[in-house]
Amino acid sequence: MRVNILVGGPLEMVPTELILQRKDEKWIGVDRGALRLLRWGIKPVLAIGDFDSVTGEELQGLEGKITRIKTYPPEKDYTDTQLGVKFAIQEQADEIEIFGATGGRLDHLLANLFLPLQSEFKPYLTKIKIIDCQNVVSYYLPGDYTISRLPHKKYLAFVNLTPVRGLTLKDEKYPLQNWSSQIPFSWTSNEFTAEENHFSFESGIISVIQCSDQLK
Amino acid sequence: MRVNILVGGPLEMVPTELILQRKDEKWIGVDRGALRLLRWGIKPVLAIGDFDSVTGEELQGLEGKITRIKTYPPEKDYTDTQLGVKFAIQEQADEIEIFGATGGRLDHLLANLFLPLQSEFKPYLTKIKIIDCQNVVSYYLPGDYTISRLPHKKYLAFVNLTPVRGLTLKDEKYPLQNWSSQIPFSWTSNEFTAEENHFSFESGIISVIQCSDQLK
Repeated sequence: MRVNILVGGPLEMVPTELILQRKDEKWIGVDRGALRLLRWGIKPVLAIGDFDSVTGEELQGLEGKITRIKTYPPEKDYTDTQLGVKFAIQEQADEIEIFGATGGRLDHLLANLFLPLQSEFKPYLTKIKIIDCQNVVSYYLPGDYTISRLPHKKYLAFVNLTPVRGLTLKDEKYPLQNWSSQIPFSWTSNEFTAEENHFSFESGIISVIQCSDQLK
Repeated sequence: MRVNILVGGPLEMVPTELILQRKDEKWIGVDRGALRLLRWGIKPVLAIGDFDSVTGEELQGLEGKITRIKTYPPEKDYTDTQLGVKFAIQEQADEIEIFGATGGRLDHLLANLFLPLQSEFKPYLTKIKIIDCQNVVSYYLPGDYTISRLPHKKYLAFVNLTPVRGLTLKDEKYPLQNWSSQIPFSWTSNEFTAEENHFSFESGIISVIQCSDQLK
Protein backbone atom coordinates (compact mmCIF):
# COMPACT_ATOMS: atom_id res chain seq x y z
CA MET A 1 0.00 0.00 0.00
CA ARG A 2 1.19 3.50 -0.84
CA VAL A 3 1.16 6.22 1.81
CA ASN A 4 1.38 9.80 0.56
CA ILE A 5 2.66 12.61 2.74
CA LEU A 6 2.04 16.30 2.17
CA VAL A 7 4.53 18.55 3.96
CA GLY A 8 4.13 22.32 4.26
CA GLY A 9 6.59 23.55 1.59
CA PRO A 10 5.83 26.29 -0.96
CA LEU A 11 2.73 25.59 -3.03
CA GLU A 12 4.38 26.51 -6.35
CA MET A 13 6.30 23.24 -6.39
CA VAL A 14 3.41 21.03 -5.25
CA PRO A 15 1.88 18.99 -8.11
CA THR A 16 -1.78 19.47 -7.18
CA GLU A 17 -3.07 17.64 -10.25
CA LEU A 18 -1.20 14.46 -9.31
CA ILE A 19 -2.31 14.79 -5.69
CA LEU A 20 -5.95 15.03 -6.73
CA GLN A 21 -5.53 11.87 -8.80
CA ARG A 22 -4.57 10.15 -5.55
CA LYS A 23 -7.59 11.47 -3.64
CA ASP A 24 -8.70 8.00 -2.56
CA GLU A 25 -5.29 6.84 -1.37
CA LYS A 26 -3.96 7.10 2.16
CA TRP A 27 -2.63 10.57 3.05
CA ILE A 28 -0.74 12.04 5.97
CA GLY A 29 -0.94 15.82 6.35
CA VAL A 30 2.14 17.33 7.94
CA ASP A 31 1.70 20.77 9.52
CA ARG A 32 0.23 23.15 6.90
CA GLY A 33 -0.03 20.17 4.54
CA ALA A 34 -3.03 18.89 6.55
CA LEU A 35 -4.96 22.11 5.89
CA ARG A 36 -4.14 22.00 2.22
CA LEU A 37 -5.34 18.41 1.86
CA LEU A 38 -8.67 19.30 3.46
CA ARG A 39 -9.02 22.30 1.17
CA TRP A 40 -8.56 19.94 -1.80
CA GLY A 41 -11.19 17.57 -0.47
CA ILE A 42 -8.76 14.95 0.82
CA LYS A 43 -9.17 13.75 4.40
CA PRO A 44 -5.81 12.60 5.75
CA VAL A 45 -5.71 9.60 8.10
CA LEU A 46 -3.45 11.69 10.30
CA ALA A 47 -2.46 15.32 10.78
CA ILE A 48 0.94 15.56 12.43
CA GLY A 49 3.54 18.18 13.27
CA ASP A 50 4.24 21.16 15.48
CA PHE A 51 1.74 23.25 13.48
CA ASP A 52 3.93 26.30 14.00
CA SER A 53 2.93 27.60 10.58
CA VAL A 54 -0.79 27.21 11.37
CA THR A 55 -2.95 29.67 13.37
CA GLY A 56 -4.90 28.55 16.46
CA GLU A 57 -8.12 29.02 14.50
CA GLU A 58 -6.88 26.88 11.61
CA LEU A 59 -5.84 24.17 14.05
CA GLN A 60 -9.31 24.19 15.62
CA GLY A 61 -10.75 23.82 12.12
CA LEU A 62 -8.59 20.71 11.65
CA GLU A 63 -9.82 19.25 14.92
CA GLY A 64 -13.39 19.15 13.68
CA LYS A 65 -12.48 17.38 10.46
CA ILE A 66 -9.57 15.01 11.03
CA THR A 67 -10.03 12.09 13.40
CA ARG A 68 -6.41 11.73 14.38
CA ILE A 69 -4.21 14.76 15.10
CA LYS A 70 -0.84 14.58 16.78
CA THR A 71 0.69 17.89 17.84
CA TYR A 72 4.26 18.24 19.02
CA PRO A 73 6.18 21.14 20.55
CA PRO A 74 8.33 23.04 17.97
CA GLU A 75 11.53 22.00 19.78
CA LYS A 76 10.95 18.29 19.44
CA ASP A 77 13.36 15.48 18.61
CA TYR A 78 12.03 14.94 15.09
CA THR A 79 11.33 17.30 12.22
CA ASP A 80 7.79 17.41 10.90
CA THR A 81 8.75 15.42 7.81
CA GLN A 82 10.46 12.77 9.95
CA LEU A 83 7.27 12.42 12.02
CA GLY A 84 5.24 11.91 8.84
CA VAL A 85 7.62 9.26 7.52
CA LYS A 86 7.76 7.45 10.90
CA PHE A 87 3.99 7.16 10.85
CA ALA A 88 3.94 5.95 7.24
CA ILE A 89 6.40 3.22 8.27
CA GLN A 90 4.16 2.23 11.19
CA GLU A 91 1.33 1.95 8.68
CA GLN A 92 3.37 -0.72 6.84
CA ALA A 93 3.57 1.40 3.70
CA ASP A 94 5.47 -0.24 0.89
CA GLU A 95 5.70 3.10 -0.94
CA ILE A 96 6.15 6.43 0.86
CA GLU A 97 5.81 9.43 -1.44
CA ILE A 98 6.49 12.87 -0.06
CA PHE A 99 5.06 16.07 -1.55
CA GLY A 100 5.66 19.67 -0.48
CA ALA A 101 9.23 18.89 0.55
CA THR A 102 11.04 21.16 -1.93
CA GLY A 103 11.17 24.81 -2.98
CA GLY A 104 11.86 27.83 -0.82
CA ARG A 105 14.16 27.30 2.14
CA LEU A 106 17.20 25.21 1.24
CA ASP A 107 17.75 24.02 4.83
CA HIS A 108 14.34 22.34 4.74
CA LEU A 109 14.83 21.00 1.23
CA LEU A 110 18.17 19.44 2.15
CA ALA A 111 16.81 18.02 5.43
CA ASN A 112 14.07 16.32 3.43
CA LEU A 113 16.41 15.15 0.69
CA PHE A 114 18.86 13.64 3.20
CA LEU A 115 16.17 12.11 5.49
CA PRO A 116 16.17 8.64 3.90
CA LEU A 117 19.91 8.29 4.63
CA GLN A 118 19.42 8.41 8.42
CA SER A 119 19.86 5.13 10.25
CA GLU A 120 16.24 5.07 11.40
CA PHE A 121 14.94 5.49 7.84
CA LYS A 122 17.66 3.78 5.81
CA PRO A 123 15.97 0.34 5.96
CA TYR A 124 13.02 1.97 4.14
CA LEU A 125 15.12 4.16 1.82
CA THR A 126 14.14 2.38 -1.38
CA LYS A 127 10.43 2.89 -0.60
CA ILE A 128 10.73 6.67 -0.29
CA LYS A 129 10.25 9.18 -3.10
CA ILE A 130 10.22 12.97 -3.07
CA ILE A 131 7.94 14.41 -5.72
CA ASP A 132 7.35 17.95 -6.90
CA CYS A 133 6.21 19.70 -10.08
CA GLN A 134 9.50 19.11 -11.88
CA ASN A 135 11.26 16.29 -10.04
CA VAL A 136 10.83 12.72 -8.87
CA VAL A 137 13.64 11.68 -6.51
CA SER A 138 14.23 8.04 -5.62
CA TYR A 139 17.00 6.40 -3.58
CA TYR A 140 19.23 3.38 -4.12
CA LEU A 141 21.54 1.22 -2.06
CA PRO A 142 24.46 -0.58 -3.78
CA GLY A 143 23.33 -3.08 -6.42
CA ASP A 144 22.31 -3.59 -10.05
CA TYR A 145 19.18 -1.80 -11.17
CA THR A 146 16.71 -1.47 -14.01
CA ILE A 147 14.99 1.92 -14.01
CA SER A 148 11.87 2.93 -15.92
CA ARG A 149 11.27 6.21 -17.64
CA LEU A 150 8.48 8.31 -16.13
CA PRO A 151 6.06 10.17 -18.40
CA HIS A 152 6.76 13.89 -19.00
CA LYS A 153 10.26 13.72 -17.55
CA LYS A 154 12.88 14.39 -20.18
CA TYR A 155 15.96 14.28 -17.96
CA LEU A 156 17.58 11.65 -15.80
CA ALA A 157 20.17 12.49 -13.14
CA PHE A 158 22.35 10.41 -10.84
CA VAL A 159 23.43 12.05 -7.62
CA ASN A 160 25.69 10.41 -5.05
CA LEU A 161 24.67 11.81 -1.68
CA THR A 162 27.54 10.04 0.06
CA PRO A 163 30.95 8.89 -1.13
CA VAL A 164 30.31 6.30 -3.84
CA ARG A 165 32.28 3.53 -5.55
CA GLY A 166 31.86 1.96 -8.97
CA LEU A 167 28.92 3.89 -10.43
CA THR A 168 28.26 2.52 -13.90
CA LEU A 169 25.58 3.88 -16.23
CA LYS A 170 25.32 1.06 -18.71
CA ASP A 171 22.98 2.16 -21.46
CA GLU A 172 21.88 5.73 -20.73
CA LYS A 173 22.49 8.53 -23.27
CA TYR A 174 25.71 9.47 -21.47
CA PRO A 175 27.24 6.25 -20.11
CA LEU A 176 29.65 6.16 -17.21
CA GLN A 177 32.08 3.41 -16.32
CA ASN A 178 33.08 2.49 -12.79
CA TRP A 179 33.09 6.05 -11.43
CA SER A 180 33.98 6.70 -7.81
CA SER A 181 33.87 9.89 -5.76
CA GLN A 182 34.58 11.05 -2.23
CA ILE A 183 32.37 14.11 -2.63
CA PRO A 184 28.69 14.39 -3.56
CA PHE A 185 28.17 15.11 -7.24
CA SER A 186 25.14 15.58 -9.46
CA TRP A 187 25.38 14.03 -12.95
CA THR A 188 22.76 16.24 -14.54
CA SER A 189 20.78 16.11 -17.78
CA ASN A 190 21.31 12.50 -18.72
CA GLU A 191 18.47 10.87 -20.66
CA PHE A 192 16.86 7.47 -21.11
CA THR A 193 17.64 5.74 -24.41
CA ALA A 194 14.71 3.31 -24.01
CA GLU A 195 11.74 2.79 -21.72
CA GLU A 196 14.09 0.97 -19.38
CA ASN A 197 17.77 1.59 -18.67
CA HIS A 198 20.31 0.18 -16.24
CA PHE A 199 22.86 1.26 -13.68
CA SER A 200 24.89 -0.23 -10.84
CA PHE A 201 27.24 0.78 -8.04
CA GLU A 202 29.21 -0.91 -5.28
CA SER A 203 29.02 1.36 -2.24
CA GLY A 204 27.34 4.54 -1.05
CA ILE A 205 23.87 5.94 -1.66
CA ILE A 206 22.65 7.22 -5.01
CA SER A 207 19.56 9.27 -5.66
CA VAL A 208 18.07 9.11 -9.12
CA ILE A 209 16.17 12.19 -10.23
CA GLN A 210 13.82 12.22 -13.17
CA CYS A 211 13.02 15.81 -14.01
CA SER A 212 11.74 18.25 -16.59
CA ASP A 213 12.20 21.89 -17.50
CA GLN A 214 8.45 22.44 -17.36
CA LEU A 215 6.28 22.43 -14.27
CA LYS A 216 3.78 19.58 -14.35
CA MET B 1 36.81 42.52 -6.00
CA ARG B 2 33.46 40.77 -6.11
CA VAL B 3 32.35 38.97 -9.27
CA ASN B 4 28.64 38.18 -9.56
CA ILE B 5 27.34 35.38 -11.74
CA LEU B 6 23.79 35.05 -13.01
CA VAL B 7 22.89 31.52 -14.08
CA GLY B 8 19.71 30.61 -15.96
CA GLY B 9 17.57 29.14 -13.15
CA PRO B 10 13.90 29.98 -12.56
CA LEU B 11 13.25 33.69 -12.16
CA GLU B 12 10.99 33.25 -9.10
CA MET B 13 13.99 32.54 -6.88
CA VAL B 14 16.22 35.30 -8.32
CA PRO B 15 16.50 38.34 -6.00
CA THR B 16 16.22 41.04 -8.67
CA GLU B 17 16.24 43.91 -6.17
CA LEU B 18 19.62 42.84 -4.78
CA ILE B 19 20.97 42.32 -8.30
CA LEU B 20 19.95 45.84 -9.32
CA GLN B 21 21.76 47.21 -6.26
CA ARG B 22 24.90 45.62 -7.71
CA LYS B 23 24.39 47.13 -11.17
CA ASP B 24 27.84 48.72 -11.21
CA GLU B 25 29.73 45.64 -10.08
CA LYS B 26 31.30 43.03 -12.32
CA TRP B 27 28.80 40.50 -13.72
CA ILE B 28 29.08 37.28 -15.70
CA GLY B 29 25.96 36.18 -17.54
CA VAL B 30 25.66 32.43 -17.91
CA ASP B 31 23.38 31.18 -20.67
CA ARG B 32 19.90 32.77 -20.25
CA GLY B 33 21.36 34.79 -17.35
CA ALA B 34 23.18 37.02 -19.88
CA LEU B 35 19.89 38.00 -21.53
CA ARG B 36 18.29 38.74 -18.18
CA LEU B 37 21.15 40.98 -17.10
CA LEU B 38 20.87 43.01 -20.30
CA ARG B 39 17.11 43.31 -19.80
CA TRP B 40 17.80 44.75 -16.34
CA GLY B 41 20.29 47.26 -17.76
CA ILE B 42 23.39 45.41 -16.59
CA LYS B 43 26.12 44.75 -19.15
CA PRO B 44 28.07 41.63 -18.16
CA VAL B 45 31.81 41.54 -18.81
CA LEU B 46 31.23 38.09 -20.28
CA ALA B 47 28.37 35.96 -21.56
CA ILE B 48 29.25 32.28 -21.34
CA GLY B 49 27.58 28.90 -21.76
CA ASP B 50 26.10 26.56 -24.31
CA PHE B 51 23.10 28.89 -24.75
CA ASP B 52 20.89 25.87 -25.29
CA SER B 53 18.03 27.68 -23.57
CA VAL B 54 18.42 30.74 -25.81
CA THR B 55 17.06 31.14 -29.36
CA GLY B 56 19.33 31.98 -32.30
CA GLU B 57 17.71 35.39 -32.48
CA GLU B 58 18.29 36.07 -28.79
CA LEU B 59 21.91 35.03 -29.17
CA GLN B 60 22.34 37.46 -32.08
CA GLY B 61 20.87 40.17 -29.85
CA LEU B 62 23.55 39.40 -27.26
CA GLU B 63 26.28 39.63 -29.88
CA GLY B 64 25.47 43.27 -30.56
CA LYS B 65 25.55 44.23 -26.90
CA ILE B 66 28.16 42.17 -25.05
CA THR B 67 31.79 42.51 -26.03
CA ARG B 68 32.88 39.08 -24.92
CA ILE B 69 30.78 35.99 -25.62
CA LYS B 70 32.03 32.45 -25.25
CA THR B 71 29.78 29.74 -26.63
CA TYR B 72 30.35 26.05 -25.98
CA PRO B 73 28.72 22.93 -27.39
CA PRO B 74 26.01 21.48 -25.05
CA GLU B 75 28.08 18.30 -24.56
CA LYS B 76 31.12 20.03 -23.15
CA ASP B 77 33.37 19.09 -20.26
CA TYR B 78 32.03 21.75 -17.90
CA THR B 79 28.54 22.77 -16.87
CA ASP B 80 27.51 26.34 -17.57
CA THR B 81 27.85 27.28 -13.91
CA GLN B 82 31.33 25.76 -13.75
CA LEU B 83 32.35 27.85 -16.77
CA GLY B 84 31.09 30.99 -15.03
CA VAL B 85 32.99 30.21 -11.84
CA LYS B 86 36.20 29.32 -13.74
CA PHE B 87 36.10 32.72 -15.40
CA ALA B 88 35.42 34.52 -12.10
CA ILE B 89 38.52 32.80 -10.69
CA GLN B 90 40.59 33.92 -13.70
CA GLU B 91 39.38 37.44 -12.97
CA GLN B 92 41.01 37.16 -9.51
CA ALA B 93 37.68 37.56 -7.75
CA ASP B 94 37.93 37.48 -3.99
CA GLU B 95 34.17 36.98 -3.72
CA ILE B 96 32.15 34.91 -6.21
CA GLU B 97 28.40 35.19 -5.71
CA ILE B 98 26.11 33.05 -7.80
CA PHE B 99 22.47 33.92 -8.54
CA GLY B 100 19.88 31.90 -10.47
CA ALA B 101 21.39 28.61 -9.28
CA THR B 102 18.36 27.32 -7.32
CA GLY B 103 14.69 26.50 -7.84
CA GLY B 104 13.13 24.18 -10.36
CA ARG B 105 15.22 21.19 -11.40
CA LEU B 106 16.89 19.51 -8.44
CA ASP B 107 19.68 18.00 -10.56
CA HIS B 108 20.82 21.51 -11.48
CA LEU B 109 20.34 22.83 -7.95
CA LEU B 110 22.44 20.02 -6.48
CA ALA B 111 25.13 20.37 -9.17
CA ASN B 112 25.42 24.04 -8.26
CA LEU B 113 25.34 23.41 -4.51
CA PHE B 114 28.08 20.75 -4.76
CA LEU B 115 30.25 22.67 -7.24
CA PRO B 116 32.55 24.32 -4.66
CA LEU B 117 33.53 20.87 -3.32
CA GLN B 118 35.19 19.81 -6.59
CA SER B 119 38.98 19.69 -6.56
CA GLU B 120 39.26 22.43 -9.18
CA PHE B 121 37.08 24.81 -7.14
CA LYS B 122 37.85 23.73 -3.58
CA PRO B 123 40.78 26.17 -3.19
CA TYR B 124 38.22 28.97 -3.79
CA LEU B 125 35.37 27.38 -1.80
CA THR B 126 35.31 29.99 0.94
CA LYS B 127 34.92 32.76 -1.64
CA ILE B 128 31.81 31.27 -3.19
CA LYS B 129 28.20 32.02 -2.18
CA ILE B 130 24.91 30.91 -3.67
CA ILE B 131 22.18 33.50 -3.22
CA ASP B 132 18.46 33.41 -3.94
CA CYS B 133 15.31 35.10 -2.64
CA GLN B 134 15.27 33.10 0.59
CA ASN B 135 18.76 31.69 1.05
CA VAL B 136 22.40 32.68 1.28
CA VAL B 137 24.68 29.63 1.18
CA SER B 138 28.35 29.85 2.17
CA TYR B 139 30.99 27.13 2.50
CA TYR B 140 33.57 26.28 5.15
CA LEU B 141 36.65 24.12 5.45
CA PRO B 142 37.65 22.78 8.91
CA GLY B 143 38.46 25.50 11.42
CA ASP B 144 37.08 27.94 14.00
CA TYR B 145 34.72 30.60 12.70
CA THR B 146 32.86 33.74 13.64
CA ILE B 147 29.75 34.23 11.51
CA SER B 148 27.68 37.39 11.12
CA ARG B 149 23.93 37.60 10.92
CA LEU B 150 22.57 38.83 7.60
CA PRO B 151 19.65 41.27 7.52
CA HIS B 152 16.17 39.79 6.90
CA LYS B 153 17.32 36.22 7.48
CA LYS B 154 15.71 34.73 10.58
CA TYR B 155 17.13 31.23 10.32
CA LEU B 156 20.59 29.76 10.40
CA ALA B 157 21.36 26.22 9.22
CA PHE B 158 24.48 24.05 9.25
CA VAL B 159 24.69 21.39 6.59
CA ASN B 160 27.54 18.93 6.27
CA LEU B 161 27.85 18.09 2.59
CA THR B 162 30.48 15.43 3.26
CA PRO B 163 31.21 13.26 6.29
CA VAL B 164 32.11 15.63 9.11
CA ARG B 165 33.89 15.40 12.46
CA GLY B 166 33.58 17.54 15.57
CA LEU B 167 30.95 20.10 14.58
CA THR B 168 30.42 22.42 17.53
CA LEU B 169 27.90 25.25 17.56
CA LYS B 170 29.15 27.28 20.48
CA ASP B 171 26.67 30.04 21.10
CA GLU B 172 23.79 29.67 18.63
CA LYS B 173 20.18 29.27 19.86
CA TYR B 174 20.51 25.49 19.60
CA PRO B 175 24.10 24.60 20.50
CA LEU B 176 25.80 21.40 19.40
CA GLN B 177 28.84 19.75 20.92
CA ASN B 178 31.42 17.80 18.95
CA TRP B 179 28.94 16.18 16.54
CA SER B 180 30.19 13.82 13.84
CA SER B 181 28.37 12.19 10.96
CA GLN B 182 29.11 9.88 8.07
CA ILE B 183 26.05 11.04 6.14
CA PRO B 184 25.04 14.53 5.01
CA PHE B 185 22.60 16.19 7.39
CA SER B 186 20.86 19.55 7.52
CA TRP B 187 20.56 21.13 10.98
CA THR B 188 17.65 23.40 10.12
CA SER B 189 16.03 26.40 11.78
CA ASN B 190 18.79 27.38 14.17
CA GLU B 191 19.04 31.09 14.97
CA PHE B 192 21.65 33.67 15.86
CA THR B 193 21.65 34.78 19.51
CA ALA B 194 23.71 37.90 18.72
CA GLU B 195 25.01 39.77 15.68
CA GLU B 196 27.93 37.36 15.69
CA ASN B 197 28.04 33.69 16.64
CA HIS B 198 30.67 30.96 16.47
CA PHE B 199 31.17 27.42 15.24
CA SER B 200 33.98 25.00 14.56
CA PHE B 201 34.66 21.58 13.07
CA GLU B 202 37.64 19.30 12.49
CA SER B 203 37.08 17.62 9.13
CA GLY B 204 34.72 17.67 6.17
CA ILE B 205 32.91 20.53 4.45
CA ILE B 206 30.07 22.50 6.02
CA SER B 207 27.72 24.85 4.27
CA VAL B 208 26.07 27.52 6.35
CA ILE B 209 22.68 28.68 5.12
CA GLN B 210 21.03 31.86 6.29
CA CYS B 211 17.42 31.82 5.21
CA SER B 212 13.95 33.20 5.69
CA ASP B 213 10.38 32.08 5.22
CA GLN B 214 9.65 35.13 3.11
CA LEU B 215 10.95 35.83 -0.37
CA LYS B 216 13.18 38.91 -0.41
